[in-house]
Amino acid sequence: MEVNYAEKVLGGSIRALSRLISYLEDEDEEAYAVLEMLYPFTGTSYIIGITGSHGTGKSTLTGRLTHVIRREGLTVGIVAVDPSSPFTGGALLGDRIRMGELSTDPGVFIRSMATRGSLGGLARATRDVVKVLDAFGKDVIIVETVGVGQDEVDIVSIADSVCLLLVPGLGDAIQMMKAGLMEIADIFVVNKADRPGADQLNAEIRMRIKQGEQFKPTEWGLPIVETIAVDGKGIEDLWQTIKQHRNFLEKSGKLIERRQEQIGQETLRVIHEQLFRVIRQRLQDSGHLDCIGQEVMKGKHNPYSTAREIIKSWLPACPI
Amino acid sequence: MEVNYAEKVLGGSIRALSRLISYLEDEDEEAYAVLEMLYPFTGTSYIIGITGSHGTGKSTLTGRLTHVIRREGLTVGIVAVDPSSPFTGGALLGDRIRMGELSTDPGVFIRSMATRGSLGGLARATRDVVKVLDAFGKDVIIVETVGVGQDEVDIVSIADSVCLLLVPGLGDAIQMMKAGLMEIADIFVVNKADRPGADQLNAEIRMRIKQGEQFKPTEWGLPIVETIAVDGKGIEDLWQTIKQHRNFLEKSGKLIERRQEQIGQETLRVIHEQLFRVIRQRLQDSGHLDCIGQEVMKGKHNPYSTAREIIKSWLPACPI
Repeated sequence: MEVNYAEKVLGGSIRALSRLISYLEDEDEEAYAVLEMLYPFTGTSYIIGITGSHGTGKSTLTGRLTHVIRREGLTVGIVAVDPSSPFTGGALLGDRIRMGELSTDPGVFIRSMATRGSLGGLARATRDVVKVLDAFGKDVIIVETVGVGQDEVDIVSIADSVCLLLVPGLGDAIQMMKAGLMEIADIFVVNKADRPGADQLNAEIRMRIKQGEQFKPTEWGLPIVETIAVDGKGIEDLWQTIKQHRNFLEKSGKLIERRQEQIGQETLRVIHEQLFRVIRQRLQDSGHLDCIGQEVMKGKHNPYSTAREIIKSWLPACPI
Repeated sequence: MEVNYAEKVLGGSIRALSRLISYLEDEDEEAYAVLEMLYPFTGTSYIIGITGSHGTGKSTLTGRLTHVIRREGLTVGIVAVDPSSPFTGGALLGDRIRMGELSTDPGVFIRSMATRGSLGGLARATRDVVKVLDAFGKDVIIVETVGVGQDEVDIVSIADSVCLLLVPGLGDAIQMMKAGLMEIADIFVVNKADRPGADQLNAEIRMRIKQGEQFKPTEWGLPIVETIAVDGKGIEDLWQTIKQHRNFLEKSGKLIERRQEQIGQETLRVIHEQLFRVIRQRLQDSGHLDCIGQEVMKGKHNPYSTAREIIKSWLPACPI
């Protein structure tokens, strides 16, 4: 890389920021080196996760919430992730642009993420982009993602406050909760709360919260906020609730605890990725990978036993 | 597991087959051991992939194609995957049940897959189910999946013949091709071919095929088959084309080549999964994982440098 991206990003260059993010999405090695340089400057942004299935109004709510946050003079970064439908990426961004001021507000940076190549690549790229926006100095970063699939849960779990959007009559409340989102949600948002069935959805969530508390009691009483994002209703409430949650996390020491745990998990992921890359490279370079296919087809081995043998030879002390 | 599932599945028990698949979806360790026992009995099924975005009529086409295949006395396994909308899983299966005879035909086994827990879990579970159906003795296995996202491309790439469904007027042809499906499609299917715009779509596909051939010439001239699945039109044609493709793969030695490569890739994936488990176990057992978070937050290290150090200590000889 010809320019010093770390310096430029820290200096506030939006152009350098955009470029660096593109390089990170492409899994560029030099971009990772820049990310490492930026690391000491991270940790000051507050990260909000907004998740919910298609049609719950995530983008609209994200836009409205951003307006409210901006009114307090705070800067905002938005990372929109939608791996299940990369084709709608353009449309989503389109919606945002139609939202008007946001896109011309220099205090707001919006990035739409598409599906990426490698295993778990999207989750990694999203984490990286959040780190960069953090170092760039955004006060608040909103990560918006469809709450379906493990990648999604991984992505939203980097947030300090996770908001789970549900809509009356969509019938997906129970499924979203089954998918493990119940356990990571900090704030429930009933959007389109003027629709029939809002009371029922509210009751359903309350019941779920109660059931959940039996297994895992928490000091933070999970709140339910009602919104009509399209009219801007309830958004101020939501923002106040997010601030209360932040306050709770900071006072109770849970913010540090949470972030320490995230760092551990992040390190684990980096080890896994790098180690795997090394092993794959060696297997390919040595021609071993081609042999495996031949050996297995001769009936001598199977992919599972072969994998075990290879890991054993690499990490001899490991129990598999 | 109390029963010998491998023996029962090989003996033709549909009950054991269904149970084993459920265990595999739950990532049960014992089920993986059964899968390993079944491995030597796999490799005889012919695998057809049917992919295309929502609304292209994949399920209807799959149903019709199954009828045609059954008429030749061949047994069929259907694996339907839809990770982007697990909520529609029930509806899809409902459509199939409404299709009538299929669900009561003992020569047909249908399985709808939902989104599963771990990273790439769905792709893995799908491959596992295909393996089990293969060992069970199905002549043909159809894997039906929405062509969106890397998981999807991974899933459909296990097929011997990949059919890409496109519909006139849906405007997604170019996007599907951008998503890397062009490279893995063996047969293009223009479904709902009586709709306006069929000729244009046909021309568009032909142009793309021509462009593709400039970069990667192939001995198999990519065919386009027109169907109206809902009326059963063109399905016999499609089946004949699939058989021609199979014949081409077998005669040219490409079937063996393809499967050898798949085994290599499968082994890599198993290594990827097991490696993560092994690494996590090691770091957790040693209490290392908790320390990392604390050290990084003190500003002494970052996750990337920490990861490098750990890998170095494990793999002293590796250049990272």
